[in-house]
Amino acid sequence: MFVVKIGGSILFDKEYQLKQKLLSNYAKTIRNIFSESKKKCAIVVGGGKLARKYIAVTRALGANEAYNDIMGIEAAKLNARLFIGALGDIAYPEPPNNLQEFHALFNVTDKIIICGGFQPGQSTNAVAASIAEIVTAEKLLNLTDVDGVYTADPDKDPNAKLMKELAISDLISLIAKQTTKAGQYPLFDKTAVQIVQRSKIVLQFINGSDPENLMKAITGKPIGTLITH
Amino acid sequence: MFVVKIGGSILFDKEYQLKQKLLSNYAKTIRNIFSESKKKCAIVVGGGKLARKYIAVTRALGANEAYNDIMGIEAAKLNARLFIGALGDIAYPEPPNNLQEFHALFNVTDKIIICGGFQPGQSTNAVAASIAEIVTAEKLLNLTDVDGVYTADPDKDPNAKLMKELAISDLISLIAKQTTKAGQYPLFDKTAVQIVQRSKIVLQFINGSDPENLMKAITGKPIGTLITH
Amino acid sequence: MFVVKIGGSILFDKEYQLKQKLLSNYAKTIRNIFSESKKKCAIVVGGGKLARKYIAVTRALGANEAYNDIMGIEAAKLNARLFIGALGDIAYPEPPNNLQEFHALFNVTDKIIICGGFQPGQSTNAVAASIAEIVTAEKLLNLTDVDGVYTADPDKDPNAKLMKELAISDLISLIAKQTTKAGQYPLFDKTAVQIVQRSKIVLQFINGSDPENLMKAITGKPIGTLITH
Amino acid sequence: MFVVKIGGSILFDKEYQLKQKLLSNYAKTIRNIFSESKKKCAIVVGGGKLARKYIAVTRALGANEAYNDIMGIEAAKLNARLFIGALGDIAYPEPPNNLQEFHALFNVTDKIIICGGFQPGQSTNAVAASIAEIVTAEKLLNLTDVDGVYTADPDKDPNAKLMKELAISDLISLIAKQTTKAGQYPLFDKTAVQIVQRSKIVLQFINGSDPENLMKAITGKPIGTLITH
Amino acid sequence: MFVVKIGGSILFDKEYQLKQKLLSNYAKTIRNIFSESKKKCAIVVGGGKLARKYIAVTRALGANEAYNDIMGIEAAKLNARLFIGALGDIAYPEPPNNLQEFHALFNVTDKIIICGGFQPGQSTNAVAASIAEIVTAEKLLNLTDVDGVYTADPDKDPNAKLMKELAISDLISLIAKQTTKAGQYPLFDKTAVQIVQRSKIVLQFINGSDPENLMKAITGKPIGTLITH
Amino acid sequence: MFVVKIGGSILFDKEYQLKQKLLSNYAKTIRNIFSESKKKCAIVVGGGKLARKYIAVTRALGANEAYNDIMGIEAAKLNARLFIGALGDIAYPEPPNNLQEFHALFNVTDKIIICGGFQPGQSTNAVAASIAEIVTAEKLLNLTDVDGVYTADPDKDPNAKLMKELAISDLISLIAKQTTKAGQYPLFDKTAVQIVQRSKIVLQFINGSDPENLMKAITGKPIGTLITH
Repeated sequence: MFVVKIGGSILFDKEYQLKQKLLSNYAKTIRNIFSESKKKCAIVVGGGKLARKYIAVTRALGANEAYNDIMGIEAAKLNARLFIGALGDIAYPEPPNNLQEFHALFNVTDKIIICGGFQPGQSTNAVAASIAEIVTAEKLLNLTDVDGVYTADPDKDPNAKLMKELAISDLISLIAKQTTKAGQYPLFDKTAVQIVQRSKIVLQFINGSDPENLMKAITGKPIGTLITH
Repeated sequence: MFVVKIGGSILFDKEYQLKQKLLSNYAKTIRNIFSESKKKCAIVVGGGKLARKYIAVTRALGANEAYNDIMGIEAAKLNARLFIGALGDIAYPEPPNNLQEFHALFNVTDKIIICGGFQPGQSTNAVAASIAEIVTAEKLLNLTDVDGVYTADPDKDPNAKLMKELAISDLISLIAKQTTKAGQYPLFDKTAVQIVQRSKIVLQFINGSDPENLMKAITGKPIGTLITH
Repeated sequence: MFVVKIGGSILFDKEYQLKQKLLSNYAKTIRNIFSESKKKCAIVVGGGKLARKYIAVTRALGANEAYNDIMGIEAAKLNARLFIGALGDIAYPEPPNNLQEFHALFNVTDKIIICGGFQPGQSTNAVAASIAEIVTAEKLLNLTDVDGVYTADPDKDPNAKLMKELAISDLISLIAKQTTKAGQYPLFDKTAVQIVQRSKIVLQFINGSDPENLMKAITGKPIGTLITH
Repeated sequence: MFVVKIGGSILFDKEYQLKQKLLSNYAKTIRNIFSESKKKCAIVVGGGKLARKYIAVTRALGANEAYNDIMGIEAAKLNARLFIGALGDIAYPEPPNNLQEFHALFNVTDKIIICGGFQPGQSTNAVAASIAEIVTAEKLLNLTDVDGVYTADPDKDPNAKLMKELAISDLISLIAKQTTKAGQYPLFDKTAVQIVQRSKIVLQFINGSDPENLMKAITGKPIGTLITH
Repeated sequence: MFVVKIGGSILFDKEYQLKQKLLSNYAKTIRNIFSESKKKCAIVVGGGKLARKYIAVTRALGANEAYNDIMGIEAAKLNARLFIGALGDIAYPEPPNNLQEFHALFNVTDKIIICGGFQPGQSTNAVAASIAEIVTAEKLLNLTDVDGVYTADPDKDPNAKLMKELAISDLISLIAKQTTKAGQYPLFDKTAVQIVQRSKIVLQFINGSDPENLMKAITGKPIGTLITH
Repeated sequence: MFVVKIGGSILFDKEYQLKQKLLSNYAKTIRNIFSESKKKCAIVVGGGKLARKYIAVTRALGANEAYNDIMGIEAAKLNARLFIGALGDIAYPEPPNNLQEFHALFNVTDKIIICGGFQPGQSTNAVAASIAEIVTAEKLLNLTDVDGVYTADPDKDPNAKLMKELAISDLISLIAKQTTKAGQYPLFDKTAVQIVQRSKIVLQFINGSDPENLMKAITGKPIGTLITH
């Protein structure tokens, strides 16, 4: 059982358009891996630019942060439905609304369950970590638009290096400095990392711009950054 | 009791950006009309460009029309949440999932209930008509980006004239020619008009680009096109 | 996958009594076809005389048309439960409340799901069409107490002939003249035919007075009226 | 707070037709009593002949007693909807599915909640008793087609006399002899009387053929049989 | 299909502590019997001392008997979750809330469904009897801390003898004398026995202090008291 | 609007018995403050020793941490029901299952909504913080068995002093060192403090052993430790 987190960052291009071709490739890859090999998986999709755009509006109009988080949750669920539509009859048709609902569904279907967000105060990364914990997943794969975790911000520091491995305690230190406005949970949020730590979940950060990387990570090839316990 | 249908066409500008200023003005107008005057209302919001963009992708990826309609329904619900965020504590916090759920909620709260779509095979106009029927609404106001119903398509025919009144039978003839792919229910769909006809619902088409028009329609001033029975 | 619509018209005799023997035969036929041959099906049952009787009372007592439709929906669900009781452990035990609920169930069970109505403004024929669309059914079989679609009303015109085939466009013309009071959706309603058209669903009208006709239609023998696209 | 149980026996005439006129009179009486006087009430409606007819069919077709009870529960809910339709906007629009759902609704609405059955193994009388217990009702009024509890069966014994009062212990002895096939819970079932006893609920049996009797019972006039503790 | 009722009496020791070792043994036994032998079962767990402790507090604080029963229902559900945790992936993760929900679940999963209570006015024994009836169970096994039904109370009468068989009519006489305060349904309550009687359910009382007894009862060895019809 | 978190630590005495007298006093105090003064509140109750006892068993039996958290959530909900029973008709009768459900309820009732836990990975303190955020509460009061936050652990250091005020940033530093096994979220967990910080919620820690302290905190008297932003 794998849990695959697909970051919202890889769904949209710079003009806020959905990357239809990439979605199509993901559908094919997921079909190959999980339908044919009988490996089981659950997918969590982020809200990405859709979430940020809608949250920007409700925040400007005076909504509180809990409500803004709900906008992000629902935007992520709409993105999740793109994958449901693309995967057709190997996907369960509705994204679940919370962890207990996911778990109940997981017990009655072999279809791939595709989730968006669950509840305010946590990111879709925490959703993915909770799912990995409750089903005792083999691995939690985190796909974003970067290659993994770097020693520094690669956009600012030309000497920044990708780390092949990173101790969970170091990941926690990194995350401690992050802010947590609704819709802004860069990298991985506190709640998520806390769950990964307490249940020693095997977590790997990989670049999701190419669906082949997903295949590599699942077949155990070295790629991205692996978090160690 | 008024039912206000806000077409998705007025939510987005030409660059697919949300019209935040307009949303803010709508929030103020609705607050004025319904909070202060004690008139009761329900609002139905369309999916607009968000729906079309997401449906285009699922259709291209091979989803069936029922599923594409579900994308449109959920996109409309995300748009509905913009109004919920903007209206704050005078709005009920979740868009209902179907008519029976709407009706149950309507019986337990005086807050404004804001809906998106309900189910495949019908547009958000049918949602608005169903709501107007089940609560025996005084009026159903349909807000789009045009001034009402014209004698011809004003974009093509310079002699096209806005009709101040139109018999329901003539509206039906107009609609009979429309196609019904998921997400494409121009003007008003067959299911919607059928409900309007059988229950003789007072229906008025107005231009929603200016929230003041909503105020005018509610206070009974002549504007747009009124459907007669 | 077949969708079978069993019209309420064939459930009751002239004295408003349920046709127990026919129900028993249907249970046997359905058991034969779908349990043994591994073909999958969903069944939609109409409200028939039960619906009409109860709607007549609520209409007389002043309920609105949306509410009268709800009476018809619930009467159809009670009829659906007759089939659930007759089919026992090959049927799912509860009729679903709407299309999304049907679809979710369809993904978690191989049992036969038996539906009544879903929501006001549409007949149980629209329910059947929606189901056929969302599961991409092989065929939608419509069983009533007549042999199919005639060139004229056979009760009034002795020259009326059964049509073996009928183009969807001609079916639409036929239906355009129908009225739509709650509980009165003769033949096939507008919403239903619209769904059949847009998704090119294979639709066949057959006489349901004899369950053998169902067997014939499923095994591809010519019977009743086939709608062509 | 009053709980009114309307026995299915008074809804149908000898030809299995609904007594529309009586329903209309009940609607008026209930409107008078509960809408104008600000007394609060909940109503439970029995399944009557509709339940018996449908249960007879599922029993003949081989369904088990639990399922037959479900037919009765749903038939009672359809009858409950007749009252909802007749009472319009002073009634909550859906019959609740179980006691916990009733109680939750009771806490969020002042509308009259109208129930059918709840769950297999108990009659609608047990539903009424449970409701009376959980809301600590002033009185539980049981309306059937007889004047109250007699010293013997008035159809068989010309000397049978109506008892104005009856001790709960004597009612229990009477009931101990009853059988309990699905749909056949004559007078009052064991579960119901057990609840009445343990919570010392004020229970009164009255003739419901005339809605005026309901008015009398609520205003405290002596009528029917009062159960004493 | 077996229904196993595990009385709350065997879950706690005299100091109100949970018997962890016994729970662990039960998990192993149930795993052996039902996972390996492909026999299907449903389990109902009682509230025991936890229920009595919490009910004592709400009763003292003035809650009504229906609410006290709800405390017992929820306490039993918490105990049910102990078995869910112990059985892991062969158990369905949530106790159902009522019989209809149980039945729906039973149709979509092969996992063991573990229940607590369902609704006020009935004990968890009635829950077990209802479940046995709706799934037409082979046997209903009732596990408590005594060896079965005795001719007299063994604590008071040294001549009391365990009955190997007992006619249902005699069981009913025994039960008729019981009281029914919330949380106090000694042996077997009236609603439960009524269901057992009408559907001629094979009921056996056995001592649950040793999980091996469950194995014996399921493999048909004589143990405890068998109720005959 | 106040949110009151009642720590599980104050519900049980050293022998694991419920403090009935304290519960009764809380019921009276809450009735005084919120029923008479028209101030609105929501209450969150912790799982305390009940949660720890049940989690200890499921952990020993091999359940994963997510499931252990669910045991804690449900234990907290059972404790919440004690307050519901004690408050009677001024409390909503069911603890909500998640934040969205709480928020929906909050919009349809003026009754006091009493919550237990919501979802794995967060404590009941995070539940309380989320509620305070979504309803924009005036104050979040955290009641435990200590007087507030100390400069050191008062059990170990005789010089430890109660802090009247504490900056949120210092609270965060304190919490950073805590572990997070299921059921063990001492003082305040990371998710909770993160919500308090981002929405600048007024948070006060007070000793809940005496209900009078609640009265003091609500009327603005200095007590315990106030967190400043």
